[in-house]
Amino acid sequence: MTTLKGRRRFLKTGAGVSLLAGAVPVARSHDASDPMARSAYGARSTYDKSERVSDAGSNCSFASDCNTLTPLQDLHGIITPPPLHFNSAHGAFPPDINPDEFTLYIHGLVNRPLKFSLAELKRLPFISRIMHMECEANYPHTHQDTTVQHTHGKVSCSEWTGVPLSVIMEECGVKPDGKWIICEGMDRDRHSKSIPLSSAMDGILAYGQNGAPLMPHQGFPLRIVIPGAGGFSNVKWLHRIKVTDEPYLTPSERFSKPFSVKSVITFPSGGQQLQGRGYYTISGMAWSGHGAIKTVDVSTDGGNTWQQAKLEDPVLSKAISRFSLKWEWDGSETVLKSRALDDAGNIQPTPEEVAARIGGTVDEVKRNKVRSPDTQWNMIFPWRVKTDGSVHNDLWT
Amino acid sequence: MTTLKGRRRFLKTGAGVSLLAGAVPVARSHDASDPMARSAYGARSTYDKSERVSDAGSNCSFASDCNTLTPLQDLHGIITPPPLHFNSAHGAFPPDINPDEFTLYIHGLVNRPLKFSLAELKRLPFISRIMHMECEANYPHTHQDTTVQHTHGKVSCSEWTGVPLSVIMEECGVKPDGKWIICEGMDRDRHSKSIPLSSAMDGILAYGQNGAPLMPHQGFPLRIVIPGAGGFSNVKWLHRIKVTDEPYLTPSERFSKPFSVKSVITFPSGGQQLQGRGYYTISGMAWSGHGAIKTVDVSTDGGNTWQQAKLEDPVLSKAISRFSLKWEWDGSETVLKSRALDDAGNIQPTPEEVAARIGGTVDEVKRNKVRSPDTQWNMIFPWRVKTDGSVHNDLWT
Repeated sequence: MTTLKGRRRFLKTGAGVSLLAGAVPVARSHDASDPMARSAYGARSTYDKSERVSDAGSNCSFASDCNTLTPLQDLHGIITPPPLHFNSAHGAFPPDINPDEFTLYIHGLVNRPLKFSLAELKRLPFISRIMHMECEANYPHTHQDTTVQHTHGKVSCSEWTGVPLSVIMEECGVKPDGKWIICEGMDRDRHSKSIPLSSAMDGILAYGQNGAPLMPHQGFPLRIVIPGAGGFSNVKWLHRIKVTDEPYLTPSERFSKPFSVKSVITFPSGGQQLQGRGYYTISGMAWSGHGAIKTVDVSTDGGNTWQQAKLEDPVLSKAISRFSLKWEWDGSETVLKSRALDDAGNIQPTPEEVAARIGGTVDEVKRNKVRSPDTQWNMIFPWRVKTDGSVHNDLWT
Repeated sequence: MTTLKGRRRFLKTGAGVSLLAGAVPVARSHDASDPMARSAYGARSTYDKSERVSDAGSNCSFASDCNTLTPLQDLHGIITPPPLHFNSAHGAFPPDINPDEFTLYIHGLVNRPLKFSLAELKRLPFISRIMHMECEANYPHTHQDTTVQHTHGKVSCSEWTGVPLSVIMEECGVKPDGKWIICEGMDRDRHSKSIPLSSAMDGILAYGQNGAPLMPHQGFPLRIVIPGAGGFSNVKWLHRIKVTDEPYLTPSERFSKPFSVKSVITFPSGGQQLQGRGYYTISGMAWSGHGAIKTVDVSTDGGNTWQQAKLEDPVLSKAISRFSLKWEWDGSETVLKSRALDDAGNIQPTPEEVAARIGGTVDEVKRNKVRSPDTQWNMIFPWRVKTDGSVHNDLWT
């Protein structure tokens, strides 16, 4: 037991854990009532009710397609379960495309226009990479945004697998004046984006997500994923790439720029309830479009003092990192904050720092009504813990 | 386009990819007929039919619980989708336990017997770790094992999150003669295993898998996961840990030893069909219970010559690594093999090397009828590609 020497016990001040007195019960039998739980394709527990929700204030009720937010408060580690990956809709239900009838077309300013079936794409070299994806609108929009699902739920992290765009571009031979690509999806509205080729060259034409084919709401059978770029550029149901000399109609230059460093505490977070004073583990997520997370500091006193959080391995570039900090809550009202630093030297700003830099009042920058032209909303985010253990969005007070 | 200089084109000899002549079609509209595809908990495509299967030769048809094998031939990257994680059954359907009524008991040779609700466990420090899990019986058993799902489908890889066992042991205070733990599950048969505490101390009492709660077939709400150890020790539906001085009834010493290095090619693999000569990307998985994969070599000529495969980042200790190799198939019959080396210096042996070391005929060791006392079945595995493009298990010829 030498490995335990010098370890601190967590429960000495009482964390609601009971000393065990008397006999240990024999396990009771349980039978799964849900036949899915024993099927060839396993199902989750009937007690696991985690769900995506729609934007607060929208009238979406899944009767039509809509933006859906990842329940960050329910997640562990860095991987997002694909059924819970956030979704930005484009006015129609996700198409469920027959992969055997799917064709990807590459044309425009290329020496060899090409077309690929999905099977042909899968014969090419592939790359797998764990990375986050974030919508540019990932910030609280209204007072109804009380939970971390609503304030930050437009970010997710997956292992994406597919063909590097660079391989496809090499195959077709980009002409010297080919500087942009237009990616078009097969959704009803033909969502398409123009992306600078220089930004897209480390992109992946992804057919795999967390080991499986993409789900329809994530672009089945093919989408483009550009590390660190805004979700806006990551066209789903991708069936056509045209190489052009300039952006057409839908320039995505702004959105294909890397997003800056960001973090948020997911436990405790808005809407959750602490069960009395004592020991807790603060948990959260940090990510940057510029590289890997270097450190995350956490404050349990509203920003007066900061402690360095633990980061879980592996810490990957342009992926979510999970952080945690041991915390002894004394039962008094306080504010919890996290502040991430990436390995490119970017650090999350306070609202006051943003206002001083780009102009506008502190309230305006908090609400993203005055926006920075060169970065997205990424300020330090506060949760208020009240004496009754309830937790609240403290940005919009 | 400087990044592409010197790059080799893959399609010059023809890989079934067509030059695009004429107009690019406009995308057709698709509507998802499955309402699940637009729900708050996303569903996979109706075209994605990937499934777990039962052991070849068993009569399991999911009418009762049974061993189920992961479809490795369908997977990408290193993460296994939880619905497709392999399962070793214990005679009953997976229980679907109410997490609000769940209690974990720690007792035996400890100073402070303790009990924890699930909520209490989640207040303790956690760890997240991507690691593989493998059943000790992960080898071909019969001539019916024609696919990689049947030959190697008792291995999966997930991001597991939970409380380090070392934290729990520190809390309860292990007495000096406490050398073993007995872990008991809540399944009908009270599956339990005795594990040396020294082997279990880097174990995790896991409540999270790939970001979500465990699925019932993976032990919801709690199981133990011991990095690199046999799946046998990783008791599901864990509700009781007793610290003892010696193993009771069900010693798992053999099975809690780390498994050795292993790899298998998943594409092309048994039952798949190549579509003519030309360019392909060979893909596969490698893992070791002793540490990280250092290199994987692939032979496309039956083992006469070997080439080093590409490994995808991140390469993690005691986790699956994905490897790949570019391959130009000339249409002739050949045998494909992979050979992994881990960072502890272990390398996969040939059947001949195993026979020479432990005795028995080559056929006997291939069939695991003569077993090594100190390692599990991990020999180099061959797939035969016939001139018609069909692929076959070449171990049992």
